[in-house]
Amino acid sequence: MNHEFSTVGQRVRDDDRRHVFHSWSAQGHIDPIPVAGASGSWFWDYDDNQYLDFSSQLVNQNLGHSHPRLVRALQEQAEQLAYIAPSFAAEPRSTAARMIAERAPTGLDQVFFTNGGADANEHAVRMARLYTGRHKVLSTYRSYHGATTGAVTLTGDPRRWSNEPGMPGVVHFFGPYLYRSAFGADNETDECRLALQHLEQVITLEGSDTVAAVLLESVVGTNGVLVPPEGYLAGVRELCDRYGIALICDEVMVGFGRLGHWFACDAWSVTPDLITFAKGVNSGYVPLGGVVIARDIADHFAARPFPGGLTYSGHPLACAVAVEHIKVIEDEQLLPRVRSLGTRLHAELTALAERHPSVGEIRGMGLMWALELVRDRESREPMVPFNATGEANQPMATITASCRDRGVWPFQHFNRLHICPPLNISDEELSHGLAAYDEALKVADEYVA
Amino acid sequence: MNHEFSTVGQRVRDDDRRHVFHSWSAQGHIDPIPVAGASGSWFWDYDDNQYLDFSSQLVNQNLGHSHPRLVRALQEQAEQLAYIAPSFAAEPRSTAARMIAERAPTGLDQVFFTNGGADANEHAVRMARLYTGRHKVLSTYRSYHGATTGAVTLTGDPRRWSNEPGMPGVVHFFGPYLYRSAFGADNETDECRLALQHLEQVITLEGSDTVAAVLLESVVGTNGVLVPPEGYLAGVRELCDRYGIALICDEVMVGFGRLGHWFACDAWSVTPDLITFAKGVNSGYVPLGGVVIARDIADHFAARPFPGGLTYSGHPLACAVAVEHIKVIEDEQLLPRVRSLGTRLHAELTALAERHPSVGEIRGMGLMWALELVRDRESREPMVPFNATGEANQPMATITASCRDRGVWPFQHFNRLHICPPLNISDEELSHGLAAYDEALKVADEYVA
Repeated sequence: MNHEFSTVGQRVRDDDRRHVFHSWSAQGHIDPIPVAGASGSWFWDYDDNQYLDFSSQLVNQNLGHSHPRLVRALQEQAEQLAYIAPSFAAEPRSTAARMIAERAPTGLDQVFFTNGGADANEHAVRMARLYTGRHKVLSTYRSYHGATTGAVTLTGDPRRWSNEPGMPGVVHFFGPYLYRSAFGADNETDECRLALQHLEQVITLEGSDTVAAVLLESVVGTNGVLVPPEGYLAGVRELCDRYGIALICDEVMVGFGRLGHWFACDAWSVTPDLITFAKGVNSGYVPLGGVVIARDIADHFAARPFPGGLTYSGHPLACAVAVEHIKVIEDEQLLPRVRSLGTRLHAELTALAERHPSVGEIRGMGLMWALELVRDRESREPMVPFNATGEANQPMATITASCRDRGVWPFQHFNRLHICPPLNISDEELSHGLAAYDEALKVADEYVA
Repeated sequence: MNHEFSTVGQRVRDDDRRHVFHSWSAQGHIDPIPVAGASGSWFWDYDDNQYLDFSSQLVNQNLGHSHPRLVRALQEQAEQLAYIAPSFAAEPRSTAARMIAERAPTGLDQVFFTNGGADANEHAVRMARLYTGRHKVLSTYRSYHGATTGAVTLTGDPRRWSNEPGMPGVVHFFGPYLYRSAFGADNETDECRLALQHLEQVITLEGSDTVAAVLLESVVGTNGVLVPPEGYLAGVRELCDRYGIALICDEVMVGFGRLGHWFACDAWSVTPDLITFAKGVNSGYVPLGGVVIARDIADHFAARPFPGGLTYSGHPLACAVAVEHIKVIEDEQLLPRVRSLGTRLHAELTALAERHPSVGEIRGMGLMWALELVRDRESREPMVPFNATGEANQPMATITASCRDRGVWPFQHFNRLHICPPLNISDEELSHGLAAYDEALKVADEYVA
């Protein structure tokens, strides 16, 4: 080990503990690993530990770390024009908007750029409210939409709780989740039918004329990789049409190839009115998010000012990386590659689940999968209680530590391990990561009753 | 003129009009200038028009465009590590946090990084609420704090209106503004005393035990360059101490040298509990914002998780530019330079005001000044009505067009012209811009009764 290198790491760690306030953390309970570098699907610390990134950081590095073409695009744009105010036109901004619009469902051809997913959702809701002249927004339990006041109120997971009361006019409903059905269903068809019936009842009882938007993750990400059953998204679209409600699909985590499609809603040929994105749009090399907007909603603001905006909207550097990012996905033919890896993962995870009694269910598509871990397959008792922390979460902490000890950085949420590596992960790397998960599941199996 | 160059400009403009949805605009009423390049205090379009940037874009490019040291820092960090999740430690993140903490008022030594100013204010309010266990937040009329639900509710200007009802628990009060006093004062001493008395009454009548925070811009930016009278900020600090309220200073526009100090509150030796920043921290080369946090508030979250965060918190690229940005400000000795330019501007604008009857008042410090334009100095009738648009705003549109025709890009808000160029503007450039304003004021004078 290089001593000087390790000394830098110690300084980075010291400064961090003294001066960096971390997201979603008890500041005294963390000891962040100083990361020295990263390449492709790997990152490493200052002590020669390497990790295969099975989480794409926060499910945002769709093309992994230090992609040479992205780095070059970023450097060249920095040379030319790093920033210009949103009121001007700028080449990377124009080009990124056009390329995103060209890949979005027909009819969505305008892009409002934001800094990330939270403000994308905030602005999409604002557009829907002003367009419809209505106020309420329905969003699902078991969802995450961001941390600003509006976005965190829309969120249907515990991160909302200590931020309440938040934005008025938000109502949560249940989406389909057969493994733990809110409707007592025991098959996908019933789950879909009952979930749509439930949503229509909520719309009716909230007053359909008061509902501006239904907001949902096309495929729920952090809260469980909940892939909607065939017909669900189309059914929601139909309900929104029937009641004059805008459909907002949050594709912050699943857009731009994560599921083997430009947009997740493409997988079901459903066209929302608004799609929000961030993360995978440019692998986070520069903060970027946005809203893809249906023509009729954009036209609503043709003569009326849209009352929203931000200093960094359409940031040239961020957009330049997004442009190159789209080109790389096409040049490296990653969309079909991700779909094919999804098929491989389905097969291998099915086999994995058969070997490990701790695996209650596997779910996913493309390069986003969840292993739902249980104490007992019969009762489906989760490996740890809902929202467990500290001692109660010990089993999951032990399982994820086992992955890390094997040089694989897992994504864990509640009683689940997710698999969401960069889209350009190699076959061998995927095998390497799965082997580590396989070993970690032996640890998990020890907790099975 | 280079024809090919102009063709690119046309394509940029066309793609923009087809696909880019712009901030704060009626989309059909805009025709954004395609910007081809920029350097220092200048930017230019594809038709050989050059503009001296008297607005630092959105008062965020404190070191102007394409600063070679910032570009190099950005390019080098891109090579090394463009992104890593906020849960890790990373050198630029650690170093930026330490350097910001070292320059912040004593006692504020932790930094939570965000993407921009809006989410900085959102998270600062969250910290104050959880720290105090109270809910209400008092903020001023004539203020801007961002466009997400919480931030726009805190905003005290018309951008809030069509976003209401927003976040519960926000109450607006009047800050000092002698030229249009809310208290009938005719001198700074009375204005200060009455504004503090007003704030204390609001605190009392809202229930002092219910108030978590007072949020204000240390010097109000877009809404008028309202420099607080001597004693005001200290008085607010004293009221906050007396009632156990957190003082949040929004320094998104005025931090990092705009007023000749690292933080604007330094000018009055006042120590807030939380300072929010963005914009000038790195001249917008990469989106960045944040909250500087007093030790006791940070400690509140030592054992309790802080319920907030974001994917791009502490973005390595953004932080690397911030680190170099601070070094450049020091190496180029810009803080004393800005203070001295402030003295120059005070003298020259005073002379300008004497020549032009349309100038009702000049206000400012450092490199942020406002010329408040009036129809009549006696009645102080503003050049255009509050929040005027379209025909009603024609005089101001004509005046700003006059500046642009002379190659100077002004900052205009309501009935005011602001002067807020990059901090490293040369003496000659400043003279050039002032000469254009001088000419534009002749146009303004024609509207004087």
